[in-house]
Amino acid sequence: MDIFENIMSRRSVRDWEDKPVPDEMVKKLLAAAMQAPSARNQQAWQFIVLNQREVLDQVAQTSPGAGWATKAPLGIIVCGDMSIQSAMAGYWVQDCSAASLNILLAAQALGLGGVWTGGYPNMDRANGLAKVVGLPDTVIPLSMVLIGYPKSRPEPEDRFKEDRVHYNQW
Amino acid sequence: MDIFENIMSRRSVRDWEDKPVPDEMVKKLLAAAMQAPSARNQQAWQFIVLNQREVLDQVAQTSPGAGWATKAPLGIIVCGDMSIQSAMAGYWVQDCSAASLNILLAAQALGLGGVWTGGYPNMDRANGLAKVVGLPDTVIPLSMVLIGYPKSRPEPEDRFKEDRVHYNQW
Repeated sequence: MDIFENIMSRRSVRDWEDKPVPDEMVKKLLAAAMQAPSARNQQAWQFIVLNQREVLDQVAQTSPGAGWATKAPLGIIVCGDMSIQSAMAGYWVQDCSAASLNILLAAQALGLGGVWTGGYPNMDRANGLAKVVGLPDTVIPLSMVLIGYPKSRPEPEDRFKEDRVHYNQW
Repeated sequence: MDIFENIMSRRSVRDWEDKPVPDEMVKKLLAAAMQAPSARNQQAWQFIVLNQREVLDQVAQTSPGAGWATKAPLGIIVCGDMSIQSAMAGYWVQDCSAASLNILLAAQALGLGGVWTGGYPNMDRANGLAKVVGLPDTVIPLSMVLIGYPKSRPEPEDRFKEDRVHYNQW
């Protein structure tokens, strides 16, 4: 799939078939995630792959946004690792966001669909996820991307807004 | 270009030909940016397109990271707009990061190359950019993506790290 078609047609998918995501696809999603740009290439990230029904059901209880996990065959919690950060401290949020988006784009290219659910900066959400999977204090969940084979896919939506573009001056 | 090829081969480009980026490509980059996912679809972003040499030279003075702007024919400052944010306050950083990455991926698909230079949370950097383009206080620069026709493109680099992957528990 062409990158424009992918970017322009991507929508959040929140309802999936009851069918596991093959391991080789999970590997591709993780490879795409780690290929994201990061501040001074610090790559200060960790990934928790959730593919056990009971763990997905447990994380679903941690916040309303995580609730979709009850239907998802796969979750990837994208975390910043404070013990790996370089001089670019604070930019881990952006690095992990880029990794999260690469997972979503790669998923769509594989015929999968997903949704980005939020962790940090809502610390109730982040701590809820961290507790279920037993993260050390230095590892903070930025997002949980839920993925699977879509039951259906929302129609593409054009979000271009001319009034958000300014040339050379505000 | 296939999305995997794009994601897996993308590297930062910091040296460009002295050749403007056509307006229709700029429009495509902006469309890709605004198609990014955002928290509850709040789309709390603004984009400042820099295509005047004197403005690019001015922003280049604001930080070492922005210095590459002296060579770039195009810059896009991706900003969070605090006056548009929804209930998902604080997530604008992630939304604008996703928009920044879409610009880089779309650029590569068009035969262009770019680099993500940092603004927020380094407020010296963010305020430096804001001052040059005259942003209101409610609009905060997250990044400045510099783009052009690459003089050369760094070789792809495999960043996959097995030890960053954990299954169901840390």
